Amino acid sequence: MADPWQECMDYAVALARKAGEIIRGALKEEISVMTKSSPVDLVTETDQKVENFIISSVKEKYPSHSFIGEESVAAGEGSILTDNPTWIIDPIDGTTNFVHRFPFVAVSIGFVVNKKIEFGIVYSCIEDKMYTARKGKGAFCNGQKLKVSGQEDITKSLLVTELGSNRDPETIKIILSNMERLLSIPIHGIRAVGTAAVNMCLVATGGADAYYEMGIHCWDMAGAGIIITEAGGVLLDVSGGPFDLMSRRIIAASSRAIGERIAKALQVIPLKRDDATN
Amino acid sequence: MADPWQECMDYAVALARKAGEIIRGALKEEISVMTKSSPVDLVTETDQKVENFIISSVKEKYPSHSFIGEESVAAGEGSILTDNPTWIIDPIDGTTNFVHRFPFVAVSIGFVVNKKIEFGIVYSCIEDKMYTARKGKGAFCNGQKLKVSGQEDITKSLLVTELGSNRDPETIKIILSNMERLLSIPIHGIRAVGTAAVNMCLVATGGADAYYEMGIHCWDMAGAGIIITEAGGVLLDVSGGPFDLMSRRIIAASSRAIGERIAKALQVIPLKRDDATN
Repeated sequence: MADPWQECMDYAVALARKAGEIIRGALKEEISVMTKSSPVDLVTETDQKVENFIISSVKEKYPSHSFIGEESVAAGEGSILTDNPTWIIDPIDGTTNFVHRFPFVAVSIGFVVNKKIEFGIVYSCIEDKMYTARKGKGAFCNGQKLKVSGQEDITKSLLVTELGSNRDPETIKIILSNMERLLSIPIHGIRAVGTAAVNMCLVATGGADAYYEMGIHCWDMAGAGIIITEAGGVLLDVSGGPFDLMSRRIIAASSRAIGERIAKALQVIPLKRDDATN
Repeated sequence: MADPWQECMDYAVALARKAGEIIRGALKEEISVMTKSSPVDLVTETDQKVENFIISSVKEKYPSHSFIGEESVAAGEGSILTDNPTWIIDPIDGTTNFVHRFPFVAVSIGFVVNKKIEFGIVYSCIEDKMYTARKGKGAFCNGQKLKVSGQEDITKSLLVTELGSNRDPETIKIILSNMERLLSIPIHGIRAVGTAAVNMCLVATGGADAYYEMGIHCWDMAGAGIIITEAGGVLLDVSGGPFDLMSRRIIAASSRAIGERIAKALQVIPLKRDDATN
């Protein structure tokens, strides 16, 4: 049987590549910066332009499909995930990096049907690395097959996470004390390149052994989530239970053992879900 | 007058490039890992092989020159900086990254005469980015001139630093509370790619506004230090006073204002100097 979503996936790859061109072009111009939820939660015209480009392009070709896009949600659109084929889009994952021209900026597209991720695209456009995964068919970077490290020993692990853009003192304290607990196990180290999607792709390549974060959104995770699982990794909730795309929390690990050990160390930050209705 | 050190610099670039080839070759093989000062302070045969290659190549051409190399010092050689022309070498800056194949690994060479850095080379060999700077002649990456951001407003800054490989509980606490104080100013964010030299080069490109760290060594800073100043940045001690190459501490900033503001926020970690004689 022909793959019902292969055509959508090919289209998504082409759109991500074109979006990356728009972003690279914008990096050569002056970038004007606005803020969203906090003085350090940044957004630019390019975020909005790239999201509009992707959504309008998809709507033209697949008028019945649904969308959850970072900037559309910021503008007041809902983010309730239905069973309808849904494109979950982060036009620029790593907007702060983009603003500073710190060289990790990704276009992320996750395609979800019946609430299951069917394919994911993460285009790290300054590095020109196109990460893709189709359910059951493996994960790739620029055509090269990806495989997680498979590391099971937390004391030999390198983790990736972020300090985030929440500047609430209590939240900062929990984020740092979680790092403290992990470092003290001990682990080899923690890295942070400034985008959830690229951090997760680095786990998929085997370059890091796990990524965890709380406070991110479905558009940060949908594209890279399936890249992790198709590279042989596992997705867990920060409690150690099953991963929930709308929960704003994730552990993406090269093995269940590492993922569960991280969950054991983490203090959970209270968060409003992406699909909360009030 | 001809530049007395240009020939040395050309030779250093060629050696760094060849060292990068050795490292990239080693990444394709099994990597066997040993530890140094702590269970997470890693070293490999490749660190030693690359350092031996660089030092023996320089000795052949410049028999009167001196050396301070990370692995030679680990093996018991001194690290007293004299007025003699001295090559300060980190064969693999980012050994933990190298072990994990996390894609930021650099060869760092600083060349110091009369205790002043004359030129610096940082070859980020997985990315194939060759950063170079000659005193008074600017800093470059793959031939392209570098310029720091010039940002003076800490609340608009993106910083780079590392959590380090010291797992002493008190040290971890200070490192994290320094991050807490900086995040609360607030700043845009903190990134960590896992090598001091590449972090500093990212400041030189303008991609980040400052780097700070305590606990690193002269071989982590000598190559990139002059890349920062030749790109228009400043080097300071973490106290805000003058930078001291042997002090194991640094702020490398895009402006004096940002550097001094960071110094104000930092609690200092007590450290034994690189040139301590006991």
